[in-house]
Amino acid sequence: MDSIKVGLLGLGVVGGGTWKVLARNAQEIARRAGRSIEVTRIAVRDVAKAQQLVGTSVKIDADPQGLVRDPSIDVVVELIGGDTLALDLVLTAIDQGKHVVTANKALLAKHGNEIFAAASKKGVIVAFEAAVAGGIPIIKAMREGLTANRIEWVAGIINGTTNFILSEMRSKGTSFAAELAAAQALGYAEADPTFDIEGVDAAHKLTLLASIAFGIPVQFDKAYIEGISKLAAEDIEMAERLGYRIKLLGITKRRPEGIELRVHPTLVPKESMIANVEGAMNAVLVRGDAVGQSLFYGKGAGEEPTASSVVADLVDVTRLLTADPEHRVPHLAFQADAMADTPILSIDDVVTSYHLRMRVLDQPGVLADLTRLLADAGISIQAMIQQPRVHDKTAELIFVTHEAVERNINQAIASIEALSFVKSKVTRLRMESLA
Amino acid sequence: MDSIKVGLLGLGVVGGGTWKVLARNAQEIARRAGRSIEVTRIAVRDVAKAQQLVGTSVKIDADPQGLVRDPSIDVVVELIGGDTLALDLVLTAIDQGKHVVTANKALLAKHGNEIFAAASKKGVIVAFEAAVAGGIPIIKAMREGLTANRIEWVAGIINGTTNFILSEMRSKGTSFAAELAAAQALGYAEADPTFDIEGVDAAHKLTLLASIAFGIPVQFDKAYIEGISKLAAEDIEMAERLGYRIKLLGITKRRPEGIELRVHPTLVPKESMIANVEGAMNAVLVRGDAVGQSLFYGKGAGEEPTASSVVADLVDVTRLLTADPEHRVPHLAFQADAMADTPILSIDDVVTSYHLRMRVLDQPGVLADLTRLLADAGISIQAMIQQPRVHDKTAELIFVTHEAVERNINQAIASIEALSFVKSKVTRLRMESLA
Repeated sequence: MDSIKVGLLGLGVVGGGTWKVLARNAQEIARRAGRSIEVTRIAVRDVAKAQQLVGTSVKIDADPQGLVRDPSIDVVVELIGGDTLALDLVLTAIDQGKHVVTANKALLAKHGNEIFAAASKKGVIVAFEAAVAGGIPIIKAMREGLTANRIEWVAGIINGTTNFILSEMRSKGTSFAAELAAAQALGYAEADPTFDIEGVDAAHKLTLLASIAFGIPVQFDKAYIEGISKLAAEDIEMAERLGYRIKLLGITKRRPEGIELRVHPTLVPKESMIANVEGAMNAVLVRGDAVGQSLFYGKGAGEEPTASSVVADLVDVTRLLTADPEHRVPHLAFQADAMADTPILSIDDVVTSYHLRMRVLDQPGVLADLTRLLADAGISIQAMIQQPRVHDKTAELIFVTHEAVERNINQAIASIEALSFVKSKVTRLRMESLA
Repeated sequence: MDSIKVGLLGLGVVGGGTWKVLARNAQEIARRAGRSIEVTRIAVRDVAKAQQLVGTSVKIDADPQGLVRDPSIDVVVELIGGDTLALDLVLTAIDQGKHVVTANKALLAKHGNEIFAAASKKGVIVAFEAAVAGGIPIIKAMREGLTANRIEWVAGIINGTTNFILSEMRSKGTSFAAELAAAQALGYAEADPTFDIEGVDAAHKLTLLASIAFGIPVQFDKAYIEGISKLAAEDIEMAERLGYRIKLLGITKRRPEGIELRVHPTLVPKESMIANVEGAMNAVLVRGDAVGQSLFYGKGAGEEPTASSVVADLVDVTRLLTADPEHRVPHLAFQADAMADTPILSIDDVVTSYHLRMRVLDQPGVLADLTRLLADAGISIQAMIQQPRVHDKTAELIFVTHEAVERNINQAIASIEALSFVKSKVTRLRMESLA
């Protein structure tokens, strides 16, 4: 089957990431989508720079209007941002009967009602998973995964820049100004950081989440927005002492009188999951009447995390254009004729770290013999703790190993248990750093 | 448009929850799905008991074979569990051209390949969101939301019973046997808890996650399974001292040689998000090459959380049977003609708790005056902290309020700031318990 033809508007951070992910995972993606997804045209301002990344096999020019009218393009991916040119291009693409994928939260928060109405009329999709919380599939989760629920409220850390600044202010006791400068130096904040630090970006995203949660039109102009620029180190310290952390939350809540829609610094209990979302990470907490609270956590920005959502939307559209509705999503994610026969490994071949605990005679040479035995078995030690038990002249010994093959660990354990100075069975527990 | 007709096989915990959620949220669900979802037939062993919950308007009998062959039924929801009768009923329903929704992980982990092949051939859907991690939409997230990624590994707390037992053992320093008994008394563990505590239930779920992550057939018989029944209080305490917690994880990982598929107690770093998933909660951590790590957290079992996923699958099927593919999922989750005009509240009308901080003269009567002022404004105090500053005879005063209307808080602040003994502006921060 012919590939799906994608036109990219913009090849900046997210556009570049989208190109890379589509290229690197082309096979994996086609196995899932049922068809190849191919970028065939790109519109950028700096054509030469784009060619450096993409090469010359793809048509690259500075003509976005030509791209959205190009009859060979099936899906337009809008990644230029802003809400003037982008609005015009998206509406034109829709009018041309093309599906649209966008990461543009400002555009949708302000002009979503108009855009979605035009798309519905034309029977095209405007997909925007990447517009909210980067790589976290929160739009899909709320729009399709929690449809049984009457949503009660949504509270999210949906701006990584401000969360990074707040995390640093708290852990280092520094000022907002100092950490804003640090964030800018690290590339986490833009030269003009207003949209992030004053909560506007979070409010764009929250506006979309509120509409999906409650079935109301997008109403960005009614959102209450307060950023973090006035927070003092003292505020954070005081909150900490009372058992709270300060997070910039986007909160939307259903009340009998109407819907709350607000972005502001918020004290949350220190031990709550959302209080422990640190650095540039994002998290969205949703409360539904049937499901209770669910948390969706991951990278909220960046080249490839955001591209992950752009490409997921492209796969959604591709599946739609490729198979009958009943076969749209394969039961096991991959097309039935594209399943792999990768073998499942025996537990003997598993590689992980281990925690080994034993009781040994507390005498010279024991540790040397044991470490030698482990080294000979190819097992590298990450940490060791010895606790003498005075009353019976033995010691409790714990080894934490680096990654090793389970078969080797089991052989080493058998050898250890055969040693005369080892006075217990070896307790073996597997460990994962999950890093 | 006519409603979608659903036949329920079984009306136990999840079946009862499904009935209740469909009834309570009928309107909200129809606004999303584009059509009403109606349970028109139920097959149970105890018909009289089922009638107590459901009434007599629905056809209830003890004839599951009749239900799956009933030409008026569009979707069969299989909630009887097990893998003998359920297998026969699901295959028959598919053969009759009906879509199937099931929460039965044992059935799919063992017979998924056969069931999915039959469904693909017939062009029907077998949806199973509820089979893994209860109310967390992890199947949708992995099958549709993370499709851009080459998945590297998945690690999940996917059995609430064992996580509850491990959480209790750790916090109370008690034995496995004691906490198993406690879990049974609370209804978190079954009379025969073997499937849960020995890791079999987690392995069923992990088998499905591995197939969706890597595009391999379901291969439950190749999973390595080790439960928590042999863990000692000492193991947990030792892990804690080293900075780790023990969780029963299902882990599936891609390696060059093949795929790891294993369930066992695992030490994880104490400060990691997954280590802090406590009690009967579930969480699945997924690592993709583009998105990095994402965590999906929520209730993994129980009447309504599991029903939340069953009903989400019903909405998915209903959308498929109702609209053109391009209009299947409405842009803002709810059908365009079913949007609400619920007003957005002004920030003055928002209700939340507040943290109010101010500096006051350290003299008798100040606190009495302030608490009286707040009481008169209808603001109830949750906590108060006073810190004297000896050098200037003032005190730092912090009030934490119960929920109050923002307008009232702002009026109270204006009154407070007008008092002669109040020597600073009032710092006002909003708080959310997120409970």
